[in-house]
Amino acid sequence: MSHAFEIICLGNELLIGKILNSNAQWLAQNVTSLGGAVQRITTVGDEIEEIATVLREALTRKSAFVLTTGGLGPTFDDKTLDAVALALKKPVELNESALIMVKDKYRHYEQTTHKTIELTPARVKMAHLPKDAVPLSNPVGTAPGVLSESASSTIINLPGVPSEMKAIFEESVAPLIRRFVGSRHMYEKSLEVTEIIESALAPLIDRVMRQHPTVYVKSHPQAAEPVPLIELHLSTHAASHETAKNRVEATAKEISHLILEHGGEIKHLAA
Amino acid sequence: MSHAFEIICLGNELLIGKILNSNAQWLAQNVTSLGGAVQRITTVGDEIEEIATVLREALTRKSAFVLTTGGLGPTFDDKTLDAVALALKKPVELNESALIMVKDKYRHYEQTTHKTIELTPARVKMAHLPKDAVPLSNPVGTAPGVLSESASSTIINLPGVPSEMKAIFEESVAPLIRRFVGSRHMYEKSLEVTEIIESALAPLIDRVMRQHPTVYVKSHPQAAEPVPLIELHLSTHAASHETAKNRVEATAKEISHLILEHGGEIKHLAA
Repeated sequence: MSHAFEIICLGNELLIGKILNSNAQWLAQNVTSLGGAVQRITTVGDEIEEIATVLREALTRKSAFVLTTGGLGPTFDDKTLDAVALALKKPVELNESALIMVKDKYRHYEQTTHKTIELTPARVKMAHLPKDAVPLSNPVGTAPGVLSESASSTIINLPGVPSEMKAIFEESVAPLIRRFVGSRHMYEKSLEVTEIIESALAPLIDRVMRQHPTVYVKSHPQAAEPVPLIELHLSTHAASHETAKNRVEATAKEISHLILEHGGEIKHLAA
Repeated sequence: MSHAFEIICLGNELLIGKILNSNAQWLAQNVTSLGGAVQRITTVGDEIEEIATVLREALTRKSAFVLTTGGLGPTFDDKTLDAVALALKKPVELNESALIMVKDKYRHYEQTTHKTIELTPARVKMAHLPKDAVPLSNPVGTAPGVLSESASSTIINLPGVPSEMKAIFEESVAPLIRRFVGSRHMYEKSLEVTEIIESALAPLIDRVMRQHPTVYVKSHPQAAEPVPLIELHLSTHAASHETAKNRVEATAKEISHLILEHGGEIKHLAA
Protein backbone atom coordinates (compact mmCIF):
# COMPACT_ATOMS: atom_id res chain seq x y z
CA MET A 1 0.00 0.00 0.00
CA SER A 2 1.56 3.23 -1.17
CA HIS A 3 1.49 6.39 0.93
CA ALA A 4 2.32 8.52 -2.07
CA PHE A 5 0.37 11.72 -2.72
CA GLU A 6 0.46 14.25 -5.52
CA ILE A 7 -0.82 17.80 -5.39
CA ILE A 8 -1.95 19.62 -8.52
CA CYS A 9 -2.61 23.37 -8.37
CA LEU A 10 -4.67 24.99 -11.12
CA GLY A 11 -4.71 28.63 -12.10
CA ASN A 12 -3.10 31.05 -14.53
CA GLU A 13 -2.66 33.45 -11.61
CA LEU A 14 -0.07 31.04 -10.15
CA LEU A 15 1.84 30.81 -13.46
CA ILE A 16 2.22 34.59 -13.75
CA GLY A 17 3.31 34.86 -10.11
CA LYS A 18 0.34 37.00 -9.18
CA ILE A 19 -0.40 34.73 -6.26
CA LEU A 20 1.86 32.95 -3.77
CA ASN A 21 0.98 29.25 -3.72
CA SER A 22 0.15 28.96 -0.04
CA ASN A 23 -2.48 26.31 -0.85
CA ALA A 24 0.26 23.90 -1.91
CA GLN A 25 2.15 24.45 1.33
CA TRP A 26 -0.97 24.03 3.46
CA LEU A 27 -1.94 20.78 1.73
CA ALA A 28 1.64 19.43 1.83
CA GLN A 29 1.87 20.21 5.54
CA ASN A 30 -1.45 18.60 6.35
CA VAL A 31 -0.91 15.50 4.23
CA THR A 32 2.56 15.05 5.78
CA SER A 33 1.31 15.39 9.34
CA LEU A 34 -1.36 12.75 8.57
CA GLY A 35 1.46 10.36 7.57
CA GLY A 36 1.23 10.75 3.78
CA ALA A 37 4.26 11.39 1.57
CA VAL A 38 3.86 14.12 -1.04
CA GLN A 39 5.95 13.12 -4.08
CA ARG A 40 5.22 15.92 -6.48
CA ILE A 41 3.46 19.28 -6.69
CA THR A 42 2.48 20.52 -10.15
CA THR A 43 0.99 23.84 -11.16
CA VAL A 44 -0.63 24.38 -14.55
CA GLY A 45 -3.00 26.93 -16.09
CA ASP A 46 -6.74 26.90 -16.76
CA GLU A 47 -6.80 24.76 -19.89
CA ILE A 48 -8.80 21.54 -20.03
CA GLU A 49 -6.29 19.60 -22.16
CA GLU A 50 -3.36 20.73 -20.01
CA ILE A 51 -5.12 19.82 -16.75
CA ALA A 52 -6.20 16.44 -18.16
CA THR A 53 -2.61 15.73 -19.25
CA VAL A 54 -1.23 16.50 -15.79
CA LEU A 55 -3.91 14.31 -14.20
CA ARG A 56 -3.16 11.42 -16.57
CA GLU A 57 0.56 11.72 -15.81
CA ALA A 58 -0.16 11.62 -12.08
CA LEU A 59 -2.39 8.55 -12.49
CA THR A 60 0.41 6.80 -14.38
CA ARG A 61 2.61 7.19 -11.31
CA LYS A 62 -0.12 5.44 -9.27
CA SER A 63 -0.09 7.69 -6.21
CA ALA A 64 -2.68 6.68 -3.65
CA PHE A 65 -4.19 10.19 -3.69
CA VAL A 66 -4.16 12.98 -6.25
CA LEU A 67 -5.36 16.24 -4.69
CA THR A 68 -6.19 19.24 -6.86
CA THR A 69 -7.03 22.81 -5.87
CA GLY A 70 -8.65 25.48 -8.01
CA GLY A 71 -11.01 25.59 -10.96
CA LEU A 72 -14.23 24.42 -9.29
CA GLY A 73 -16.35 27.60 -9.35
CA PRO A 74 -19.11 28.90 -11.62
CA THR A 75 -16.98 30.77 -14.19
CA PHE A 76 -15.98 29.66 -17.68
CA ASP A 77 -12.36 29.18 -16.59
CA ASP A 78 -13.29 26.73 -13.84
CA LYS A 79 -12.42 23.64 -15.87
CA THR A 80 -11.14 21.10 -13.37
CA LEU A 81 -14.13 18.75 -13.46
CA ASP A 82 -14.24 18.67 -17.27
CA ALA A 83 -10.54 17.78 -17.18
CA VAL A 84 -11.05 14.99 -14.62
CA ALA A 85 -13.83 13.55 -16.78
CA LEU A 86 -11.56 13.73 -19.83
CA ALA A 87 -8.66 12.06 -18.00
CA LEU A 88 -10.94 9.29 -16.68
CA LYS A 89 -12.78 8.98 -20.01
CA LYS A 90 -16.13 9.57 -18.35
CA PRO A 91 -18.96 11.93 -19.24
CA VAL A 92 -19.84 14.93 -17.09
CA GLU A 93 -23.39 14.75 -15.80
CA LEU A 94 -25.70 16.47 -13.38
CA ASN A 95 -25.10 14.92 -9.96
CA GLU A 96 -28.29 14.93 -7.88
CA SER A 97 -26.54 15.10 -4.48
CA ALA A 98 -24.34 17.94 -5.68
CA LEU A 99 -27.39 19.80 -7.01
CA ILE A 100 -29.08 19.53 -3.62
CA MET A 101 -25.91 20.95 -1.98
CA VAL A 102 -25.76 23.89 -4.41
CA LYS A 103 -29.53 24.58 -4.13
CA ASP A 104 -29.31 24.54 -0.33
CA LYS A 105 -26.49 27.10 -0.46
CA TYR A 106 -28.43 29.52 -2.66
CA ARG A 107 -31.57 29.10 -0.55
CA HIS A 108 -29.45 29.98 2.47
CA TYR A 109 -27.93 33.01 0.66
CA GLU A 110 -31.42 34.18 -0.28
CA GLN A 111 -32.42 34.07 3.36
CA THR A 112 -29.28 35.96 4.44
CA THR A 113 -29.35 38.61 1.73
CA HIS A 114 -33.13 38.90 1.20
CA LYS A 115 -32.53 38.82 -2.57
CA THR A 116 -33.83 36.31 -5.09
CA ILE A 117 -31.03 34.18 -6.52
CA GLU A 118 -31.94 32.37 -9.70
CA LEU A 119 -30.45 28.95 -10.41
CA THR A 120 -28.63 30.07 -13.58
CA PRO A 121 -26.59 27.69 -15.78
CA ALA A 122 -23.37 29.09 -14.23
CA ARG A 123 -24.64 28.01 -10.79
CA VAL A 124 -25.95 24.61 -11.88
CA LYS A 125 -22.52 24.04 -13.50
CA MET A 126 -21.10 23.45 -10.01
CA ALA A 127 -23.32 20.36 -9.72
CA HIS A 128 -22.05 18.83 -12.96
CA LEU A 129 -19.52 16.18 -11.96
CA PRO A 130 -17.70 13.36 -13.74
CA LYS A 131 -19.88 10.22 -13.80
CA ASP A 132 -19.63 8.14 -10.57
CA ALA A 133 -18.00 11.02 -8.67
CA VAL A 134 -19.06 11.89 -5.13
CA PRO A 135 -19.58 15.52 -4.04
CA LEU A 136 -17.94 16.60 -0.77
CA SER A 137 -19.97 19.20 1.10
CA ASN A 138 -18.49 22.72 1.23
CA PRO A 139 -19.11 24.11 4.72
CA VAL A 140 -18.12 27.69 3.85
CA GLY A 141 -18.74 28.21 0.11
CA THR A 142 -20.86 27.04 -2.79
CA ALA A 143 -18.87 24.67 -5.03
CA PRO A 144 -18.69 21.18 -3.49
CA GLY A 145 -15.40 19.26 -3.48
CA VAL A 146 -15.39 16.18 -5.67
CA LEU A 147 -14.04 12.67 -5.16
CA SER A 148 -13.46 10.25 -8.07
CA GLU A 149 -11.81 6.85 -8.15
CA SER A 150 -9.46 5.64 -10.89
CA ALA A 151 -8.01 2.14 -11.06
CA SER A 152 -5.05 3.13 -8.86
CA SER A 153 -5.81 6.46 -7.22
CA THR A 154 -8.39 8.51 -5.40
CA ILE A 155 -8.72 11.91 -7.06
CA ILE A 156 -9.97 14.72 -4.85
CA ASN A 157 -10.80 18.16 -6.29
CA LEU A 158 -10.87 21.08 -3.89
CA PRO A 159 -11.69 24.75 -4.59
CA GLY A 160 -8.88 27.31 -4.82
CA VAL A 161 -10.33 29.75 -2.27
CA PRO A 162 -8.19 28.85 0.77
CA SER A 163 -11.00 28.93 3.36
CA GLU A 164 -13.14 26.59 1.23
CA MET A 165 -10.23 24.26 0.42
CA LYS A 166 -9.29 23.95 4.10
CA ALA A 167 -12.86 23.43 5.31
CA ILE A 168 -13.55 20.60 2.83
CA PHE A 169 -10.15 19.03 3.52
CA GLU A 170 -10.69 19.03 7.27
CA GLU A 171 -14.27 17.82 7.13
CA SER A 172 -14.10 15.18 4.37
CA VAL A 173 -10.52 14.49 3.24
CA ALA A 174 -8.47 14.29 6.45
CA PRO A 175 -10.61 11.45 7.92
CA LEU A 176 -10.23 9.54 4.66
CA ILE A 177 -6.42 9.93 4.65
CA ARG A 178 -6.21 9.03 8.31
CA ARG A 179 -8.11 5.78 7.69
CA PHE A 180 -6.04 4.98 4.61
CA VAL A 181 -2.59 5.72 6.02
CA GLY A 182 -3.34 4.10 9.36
CA SER A 183 -0.83 4.48 12.14
CA ARG A 184 2.11 6.40 10.78
CA HIS A 185 3.74 9.20 12.69
CA MET A 186 6.12 11.91 11.63
CA TYR A 187 8.61 13.45 14.02
CA GLU A 188 10.85 16.39 13.16
CA LYS A 189 13.37 18.58 14.91
CA SER A 190 15.48 21.56 13.91
CA LEU A 191 18.94 22.58 15.13
CA GLU A 192 20.40 26.02 14.54
CA VAL A 193 24.07 25.69 13.80
CA THR A 194 26.69 28.47 13.79
CA GLU A 195 30.47 28.83 13.55
CA ILE A 196 30.69 26.14 10.87
CA ILE A 197 29.99 26.67 7.17
CA GLU A 198 27.75 24.42 5.11
CA SER A 199 30.56 22.88 3.09
CA ALA A 200 32.27 21.81 6.34
CA LEU A 201 28.99 20.45 7.72
CA ALA A 202 28.28 18.35 4.60
CA PRO A 203 30.62 15.39 5.40
CA LEU A 204 29.31 15.26 9.01
CA ILE A 205 25.69 14.97 7.85
CA ASP A 206 26.78 12.32 5.41
CA ARG A 207 28.34 10.25 8.20
CA VAL A 208 25.35 10.49 10.52
CA MET A 209 22.86 9.64 7.77
CA ARG A 210 24.77 6.49 6.88
CA GLN A 211 24.47 5.41 10.52
CA HIS A 212 20.78 6.38 10.77
CA PRO A 213 19.35 5.60 7.35
CA THR A 214 15.70 6.04 8.45
CA VAL A 215 16.28 9.65 9.56
CA TYR A 216 16.42 12.34 6.92
CA VAL A 217 18.80 15.20 7.70
CA LYS A 218 18.88 18.33 5.59
CA SER A 219 20.83 21.56 5.97
CA HIS A 220 19.17 24.86 5.10
CA PRO A 221 21.62 27.75 4.93
CA GLN A 222 19.84 30.81 6.33
CA ALA A 223 22.27 33.10 4.56
CA ALA A 224 24.91 32.70 1.87
CA GLU A 225 28.35 31.46 2.89
CA PRO A 226 30.48 32.40 4.73
CA VAL A 227 27.86 33.65 7.23
CA PRO A 228 27.60 30.54 9.34
CA LEU A 229 23.91 30.23 10.22
CA ILE A 230 22.44 26.94 9.10
CA GLU A 231 19.20 25.23 10.04
CA LEU A 232 19.58 21.46 10.30
CA HIS A 233 16.24 19.71 9.87
CA LEU A 234 15.84 16.10 11.00
CA SER A 235 12.71 14.07 10.28
CA THR A 236 11.43 10.52 10.16
CA HIS A 237 8.22 8.51 9.84
CA ALA A 238 7.49 5.51 12.07
CA ALA A 239 4.58 3.34 13.19
CA SER A 240 4.58 4.98 16.62
CA HIS A 241 5.31 8.50 17.84
CA GLU A 242 7.73 7.03 20.40
CA THR A 243 9.87 5.25 17.79
CA ALA A 244 9.95 8.26 15.48
CA LYS A 245 10.92 10.56 18.34
CA ASN A 246 13.66 8.26 19.67
CA ARG A 247 15.23 7.92 16.23
CA VAL A 248 15.31 11.66 15.57
CA GLU A 249 16.57 12.52 19.06
CA ALA A 250 19.39 9.95 18.87
CA THR A 251 20.46 11.30 15.49
CA ALA A 252 20.24 14.91 16.71
CA LYS A 253 22.46 14.07 19.68
CA GLU A 254 25.07 12.47 17.45
CA ILE A 255 25.21 15.23 14.84
CA SER A 256 25.35 17.87 17.62
CA HIS A 257 28.31 16.08 19.13
CA LEU A 258 30.12 15.98 15.76
CA ILE A 259 29.40 19.65 15.12
CA LEU A 260 30.84 20.71 18.50
CA GLU A 261 33.89 18.54 17.83
CA HIS A 262 34.47 20.40 14.56
CA GLY A 263 34.32 23.87 16.10
CA GLY A 264 30.67 24.58 15.39
CA GLU A 265 28.03 25.70 17.87
CA ILE A 266 24.40 24.73 18.35
CA LYS A 267 22.49 27.96 18.83
CA HIS A 268 19.20 26.63 20.01
CA LEU A 269 17.11 23.50 19.83
CA ALA A 270 13.55 23.71 18.55
CA ALA A 271 11.41 20.56 18.85
CA MET B 1 9.92 30.69 -31.62
CA SER B 2 8.22 29.57 -28.43
CA HIS B 3 8.02 31.82 -25.38
CA ALA B 4 7.23 28.87 -23.16
CA PHE B 5 9.03 28.48 -19.83
CA GLU B 6 8.96 25.79 -17.17
CA ILE B 7 10.03 26.17 -13.57
CA ILE B 8 11.22 23.19 -11.53
CA CYS B 9 11.66 23.55 -7.76
CA LEU B 10 13.76 21.00 -5.91
CA GLY B 11 13.67 20.20 -2.21
CA ASN B 12 12.04 17.80 0.22
CA GLU B 13 11.33 20.80 2.44
CA LEU B 14 8.80 21.99 -0.17
CA LEU B 15 7.08 18.58 -0.33
CA ILE B 16 6.52 18.45 3.43
CA GLY B 17 5.22 22.03 3.47
CA LYS B 18 8.03 23.21 5.71
CA ILE B 19 8.73 26.07 3.34
CA LEU B 20 6.44 28.34 1.32
CA ASN B 21 7.51 28.26 -2.32
CA SER B 22 8.17 31.97 -2.75
CA ASN B 23 10.99 31.20 -5.23
CA ALA B 24 8.44 29.87 -7.72
CA GLN B 25 6.36 33.02 -7.43
CA TRP B 26 9.37 35.30 -7.80
CA LEU B 27 10.60 33.47 -10.90
CA ALA B 28 7.10 33.32 -12.44
CA GLN B 29 6.62 37.04 -11.86
CA ASN B 30 9.98 37.96 -13.33
CA VAL B 31 9.73 35.67 -16.35
CA THR B 32 6.22 37.00 -17.05
CA SER B 33 7.26 40.63 -16.82
CA LEU B 34 10.10 39.89 -19.28
CA GLY B 35 7.48 38.61 -21.76
CA GLY B 36 7.89 34.87 -21.16
CA ALA B 37 4.96 32.53 -20.58
CA VAL B 38 5.33 30.06 -17.70
CA GLN B 39 3.47 26.88 -18.66
CA ARG B 40 4.16 24.65 -15.71
CA ILE B 41 5.75 24.70 -12.25
CA THR B 42 6.83 21.37 -10.79
CA THR B 43 8.19 20.59 -7.34
CA VAL B 44 9.96 17.32 -6.54
CA GLY B 45 12.27 16.05 -3.81
CA ASP B 46 16.03 15.59 -3.61
CA GLU B 47 16.38 12.36 -5.59
CA ILE B 48 18.55 12.18 -8.69
CA GLU B 49 16.26 9.82 -10.64
CA GLU B 50 13.19 11.85 -9.77
CA ILE B 51 14.80 15.16 -10.75
CA ALA B 52 16.15 13.66 -14.00
CA THR B 53 12.66 12.33 -14.83
CA VAL B 54 11.06 15.73 -14.31
CA LEU B 55 13.78 17.37 -16.44
CA ARG B 56 13.30 14.82 -19.23
CA GLU B 57 9.54 15.39 -19.17
CA ALA B 58 10.07 19.15 -19.42
CA LEU B 59 12.49 18.73 -22.35
CA THR B 60 9.90 16.59 -24.15
CA ARG B 61 7.51 19.55 -24.02
CA LYS B 62 10.22 21.66 -25.73
CA SER B 63 9.91 24.82 -23.64
CA ALA B 64 12.41 27.48 -24.64
CA PHE B 65 13.72 27.69 -21.07
CA VAL B 66 13.66 25.27 -18.15
CA LEU B 67 14.60 27.04 -14.92
CA THR B 68 15.37 25.06 -11.77
CA THR B 69 15.97 26.27 -8.22
CA GLY B 70 17.56 24.35 -5.36
CA GLY B 71 20.07 21.55 -4.98
CA LEU B 72 23.26 23.35 -6.07
CA GLY B 73 25.20 23.54 -2.79
CA PRO B 74 28.01 21.49 -1.24
CA THR B 75 25.92 18.88 0.64
CA PHE B 76 25.15 15.30 -0.37
CA ASP B 77 21.51 16.16 -1.06
CA ASP B 78 22.42 18.85 -3.59
CA LYS B 79 21.82 16.64 -6.62
CA THR B 80 20.56 18.93 -9.34
CA LEU B 81 23.68 18.90 -11.52
CA ASP B 82 23.98 15.11 -11.41
CA ALA B 83 20.34 14.95 -12.48
CA VAL B 84 20.87 17.40 -15.36
CA ALA B 85 23.83 15.32 -16.55
CA LEU B 86 21.72 12.16 -16.33
CA ALA B 87 18.84 13.74 -18.24
CA LEU B 88 21.19 15.05 -20.95
CA LYS B 89 23.23 11.81 -20.99
CA LYS B 90 26.44 13.68 -20.31
CA PRO B 91 29.17 13.08 -17.75
CA VAL B 92 29.77 15.42 -14.83
CA GLU B 93 33.24 16.89 -14.90
CA LEU B 94 35.34 19.52 -13.18
CA ASN B 95 34.65 22.82 -14.93
CA GLU B 96 37.72 25.08 -14.86
CA SER B 97 35.80 28.39 -14.96
CA ALA B 98 33.50 27.20 -12.18
CA LEU B 99 36.50 26.13 -10.11
CA ILE B 100 38.02 29.60 -10.45
CA MET B 101 34.71 31.12 -9.29
CA VAL B 102 34.54 28.83 -6.25
CA LYS B 103 38.22 29.36 -5.36
CA ASP B 104 37.81 33.13 -5.61
CA LYS B 105 34.86 32.97 -3.22
CA TYR B 106 36.78 31.01 -0.58
CA ARG B 107 39.82 33.27 -0.94
CA HIS B 108 37.48 36.20 -0.31
CA TYR B 109 35.90 34.45 2.71
CA GLU B 110 39.37 33.76 4.12
CA GLN B 111 40.16 37.45 3.86
CA THR B 112 36.87 38.43 5.52
CA THR B 113 36.95 35.85 8.31
CA HIS B 114 40.72 35.55 8.82
CA LYS B 115 40.33 31.76 8.91
CA THR B 116 41.92 29.20 6.59
CA ILE B 117 39.32 27.50 4.40
CA GLU B 118 40.51 24.28 2.79
CA LEU B 119 39.25 23.35 -0.66
CA THR B 120 37.53 20.13 0.52
CA PRO B 121 35.75 17.70 -1.86
CA ALA B 122 32.38 19.13 -0.69
CA ARG B 123 33.54 22.58 -1.87
CA VAL B 124 35.06 21.42 -5.14
CA LYS B 125 31.76 19.58 -5.81
CA MET B 126 30.19 22.96 -6.64
CA ALA B 127 32.56 23.22 -9.63
CA HIS B 128 31.54 19.83 -11.06
CA LEU B 129 29.11 20.58 -13.88
CA PRO B 130 27.54 18.57 -16.69
CA LYS B 131 29.90 18.47 -19.69
CA ASP B 132 29.58 21.58 -21.95
CA ALA B 133 27.72 23.53 -19.27
CA VAL B 134 28.52 27.16 -18.53
CA PRO B 135 28.79 28.46 -14.94
CA LEU B 136 26.92 31.68 -14.10
CA SER B 137 28.69 33.77 -11.51
CA ASN B 138 27.02 34.00 -8.08
CA PRO B 139 27.39 37.59 -6.83
CA VAL B 140 26.24 36.83 -3.27
CA GLY B 141 27.05 33.17 -2.51
CA THR B 142 29.38 30.32 -3.43
CA ALA B 143 27.64 27.88 -5.78
CA PRO B 144 27.56 29.22 -9.35
CA GLY B 145 24.38 28.96 -11.42
CA VAL B 146 24.65 26.62 -14.40
CA LEU B 147 23.48 26.88 -18.01
CA SER B 148 23.19 23.83 -20.29
CA GLU B 149 21.74 23.51 -23.76
CA SER B 150 19.62 20.58 -24.95
CA ALA B 151 18.36 20.14 -28.51
CA SER B 152 15.24 22.23 -27.80
CA SER B 153 15.74 24.06 -24.53
CA THR B 154 18.09 26.14 -22.44
CA ILE B 155 18.32 24.65 -18.94
CA ILE B 156 19.29 27.06 -16.18
CA ASN B 157 20.01 25.84 -12.65
CA LEU B 158 19.79 28.37 -9.85
CA PRO B 159 20.45 27.91 -6.11
CA GLY B 160 17.52 27.63 -3.69
CA VAL B 161 18.70 30.37 -1.30
CA PRO B 162 16.45 33.24 -2.47
CA SER B 163 19.11 36.00 -2.37
CA GLU B 164 21.49 33.89 -4.49
CA MET B 165 18.75 32.81 -6.92
CA LYS B 166 17.63 36.40 -7.46
CA ALA B 167 21.15 37.78 -7.86
CA ILE B 168 22.13 35.23 -10.53
CA PHE B 169 18.79 35.64 -12.30
CA GLU B 170 19.11 39.41 -12.47
CA GLU B 171 22.76 39.42 -13.49
CA SER B 172 22.88 36.54 -15.99
CA VAL B 173 19.43 35.17 -16.80
CA ALA B 174 17.22 38.24 -17.29
CA PRO B 175 19.44 39.69 -20.07
CA LEU B 176 19.32 36.32 -21.82
CA ILE B 177 15.53 36.12 -21.64
CA ARG B 178 15.16 39.72 -22.75
CA ARG B 179 17.27 39.05 -25.85
CA PHE B 180 15.39 35.83 -26.57
CA VAL B 181 11.84 37.10 -26.09
CA GLY B 182 12.51 40.41 -27.82
CA SER B 183 9.85 43.07 -27.66
CA ARG B 184 6.89 41.66 -25.81
CA HIS B 185 5.01 43.63 -23.21
CA MET B 186 2.54 42.57 -20.57
CA TYR B 187 -0.15 44.88 -19.26
CA GLU B 188 -2.48 44.02 -16.40
CA LYS B 189 -5.19 45.71 -14.41
CA SER B 190 -7.42 44.73 -11.50
CA LEU B 191 -10.98 45.79 -10.72
CA GLU B 192 -12.59 45.25 -7.33
CA VAL B 193 -16.20 44.32 -7.82
CA THR B 194 -18.95 44.27 -5.18
CA GLU B 195 -22.73 43.83 -5.02
CA ILE B 196 -22.67 41.07 -7.60
CA ILE B 197 -21.81 37.42 -6.89
CA GLU B 198 -19.35 35.39 -8.94
CA SER B 199 -21.96 33.16 -10.53
CA ALA B 200 -23.78 36.28 -11.81
CA LEU B 201 -20.51 37.78 -13.06
CA ALA B 202 -19.52 34.64 -14.99
CA PRO B 203 -21.74 35.19 -18.09
CA LEU B 204 -20.63 38.86 -18.30
CA ILE B 205 -16.94 37.90 -18.36
CA ASP B 206 -17.76 35.30 -20.96
CA ARG B 207 -19.35 37.91 -23.20
CA VAL B 208 -16.50 40.41 -22.92
CA MET B 209 -13.83 37.77 -23.54
CA ARG B 210 -15.54 36.67 -26.73
CA GLN B 211 -15.35 40.26 -27.95
CA HIS B 212 -11.74 40.75 -26.81
CA PRO B 213 -10.09 37.38 -27.37
CA THR B 214 -6.54 38.68 -26.78
CA VAL B 215 -7.34 39.89 -23.26
CA TYR B 216 -7.49 37.35 -20.47
CA VAL B 217 -10.07 38.10 -17.77
CA LYS B 218 -10.21 36.11 -14.57
CA SER B 219 -12.33 36.50 -11.46
CA HIS B 220 -10.80 35.85 -8.05
CA PRO B 221 -13.40 35.68 -5.28
CA GLN B 222 -11.85 37.29 -2.21
CA ALA B 223 -14.31 35.51 0.04
CA ALA B 224 -16.79 32.67 -0.37
CA GLU B 225 -20.21 33.46 -1.82
CA PRO B 226 -22.47 35.21 -1.08
CA VAL B 227 -20.09 37.92 0.22
CA PRO B 228 -19.73 39.87 -2.99
CA LEU B 229 -16.08 40.92 -3.14
CA ILE B 230 -14.39 39.75 -6.29
CA GLU B 231 -11.12 40.80 -7.87
CA LEU B 232 -11.31 40.89 -11.65
CA HIS B 233 -7.87 40.58 -13.22
CA LEU B 234 -7.34 41.59 -16.86
CA SER B 235 -4.09 40.96 -18.70
CA THR B 236 -2.60 40.77 -22.18
CA HIS B 237 0.71 40.54 -24.01
CA ALA B 238 1.49 42.68 -27.06
CA ALA B 239 4.44 43.88 -29.12
CA SER B 240 4.17 47.37 -27.63
CA HIS B 241 3.20 48.69 -24.22
CA GLU B 242 0.73 51.05 -25.89
CA THR B 243 -1.17 48.27 -27.66
CA ALA B 244 -1.28 46.09 -24.57
CA LYS B 245 -2.53 48.98 -22.45
CA ASN B 246 -5.20 50.06 -24.92
CA ARG B 247 -6.57 46.54 -25.20
CA VAL B 248 -6.81 46.03 -21.45
CA GLU B 249 -8.29 49.47 -20.80
CA ALA B 250 -10.96 49.05 -23.50
CA THR B 251 -11.92 45.66 -22.07
CA ALA B 252 -11.96 47.03 -18.51
CA LYS B 253 -14.28 49.85 -19.58
CA GLU B 254 -16.67 47.42 -21.21
CA ILE B 255 -16.84 44.92 -18.37
CA SER B 256 -17.26 47.78 -15.85
CA HIS B 257 -20.21 49.06 -17.84
CA LEU B 258 -21.82 45.60 -17.91
CA ILE B 259 -21.27 45.13 -14.16
CA LEU B 260 -22.95 48.46 -13.32
CA GLU B 261 -25.83 47.55 -15.62
CA HIS B 262 -26.32 44.32 -13.67
CA GLY B 263 -26.44 45.99 -10.26
CA GLY B 264 -22.79 45.48 -9.35
CA GLU B 265 -20.37 48.15 -8.18
CA ILE B 266 -16.72 48.80 -8.96
CA LYS B 267 -15.04 49.50 -5.65
CA HIS B 268 -11.77 50.85 -6.88
CA LEU B 269 -9.53 50.67 -9.91
CA ALA B 270 -5.92 49.62 -9.45
CA ALA B 271 -3.62 49.86 -12.48
